[in-house]
Amino acid sequence: MKKSIGTKPIEYAYPLPVFVVGTYDSEGKPNVMTLGYGGICCSAPPCVAIAVSKARYTYRNIAERKAFTISIPSEKYAKEADYIGIVSGKRVDKFAATGLTPAKSDLVDAPYVDEFPFILECQLFRSVEIGSYTQFIGEIKDMKVDEDVLTNDRPLIEKVKPLIFSMDRNTASYYRVGTNVAIAFSVGKEIEKKSGG
Amino acid sequence: MKKSIGTKPIEYAYPLPVFVVGTYDSEGKPNVMTLGYGGICCSAPPCVAIAVSKARYTYRNIAERKAFTISIPSEKYAKEADYIGIVSGKRVDKFAATGLTPAKSDLVDAPYVDEFPFILECQLFRSVEIGSYTQFIGEIKDMKVDEDVLTNDRPLIEKVKPLIFSMDRNTASYYRVGTNVAIAFSVGKEIEKKSGG
Repeated sequence: MKKSIGTKPIEYAYPLPVFVVGTYDSEGKPNVMTLGYGGICCSAPPCVAIAVSKARYTYRNIAERKAFTISIPSEKYAKEADYIGIVSGKRVDKFAATGLTPAKSDLVDAPYVDEFPFILECQLFRSVEIGSYTQFIGEIKDMKVDEDVLTNDRPLIEKVKPLIFSMDRNTASYYRVGTNVAIAFSVGKEIEKKSGG
Repeated sequence: MKKSIGTKPIEYAYPLPVFVVGTYDSEGKPNVMTLGYGGICCSAPPCVAIAVSKARYTYRNIAERKAFTISIPSEKYAKEADYIGIVSGKRVDKFAATGLTPAKSDLVDAPYVDEFPFILECQLFRSVEIGSYTQFIGEIKDMKVDEDVLTNDRPLIEKVKPLIFSMDRNTASYYRVGTNVAIAFSVGKEIEKKSGG
């Protein structure tokens, strides 16, 4: 039996990603913000969408610089990722406060977090006004990963240890990725064979 | 030391959601497809974006019916979710093949998977052409959840048991959500106090 729970909060809906978005402001000061509203939205060109409200410092930075990065924090940086989502770059230097290092992308006009294991470098492809949020679609120019999370040149999720975000009881929480349930594009073939289609 | 890995496959980037998208075709036949390209993109109005390539049966269905649902499979339905992502609704009736039940939304012109614990009912809000994919932004009209995953009217992620999708070694896999790492909007306050801002 299903029950209606309305639409607040929508963060109940599924495990959201934890994206730390890096930008430069008009003076070249690096900033980061943490968000969960985003996801891949195209393969050719490879694009990722993030949603940012107009009030955010990051909004102005992306509008001006036409670029951003996404740094994926590993679970040992949960505290830093959370702090980056709590405070505004208008008031504080989040890199200084956390001790994290801004690294300049060599491909797009934005900084990333050098300590985080997985980086997407994005050129602004399109902006879409939705309502309280603007969606910035970024074309992914490259992905950079720490060598120590690679095995045979492939990043392993067990080594990257990304966080996921979800509502839990009375608050929101960061979760780790759990164990493997099944192989994709494979386990479903049993049904295909049985049903003959 | 970071290493460039290019942009293929982009599914390396972070744990993607597993969305089973429900639509009706022009004859009213219910269809479902599984995708990982999507995410929340606005809070007011509450919106979720999914990216679908033009070749897909779902593309035509959403363009015609202006509505879709997202059914979140729990981990015990990994096989069904995978099958739904492998085959096309042009050829087969995926509900019949899996034995899953199409339930008609009372709010939007689309069916959802009755056996899955978490449902988003979406009215098409905007379509955004990107490249090989079209992004459909849906306004979430309601979320419906199985009563047995609720505690004090809140869905618990430990009971919903959603899947996440990621690349792993030579293939892609479904993972379960792991244990809680930290409380959000809380653990970062230690840095805020220490840094005074």
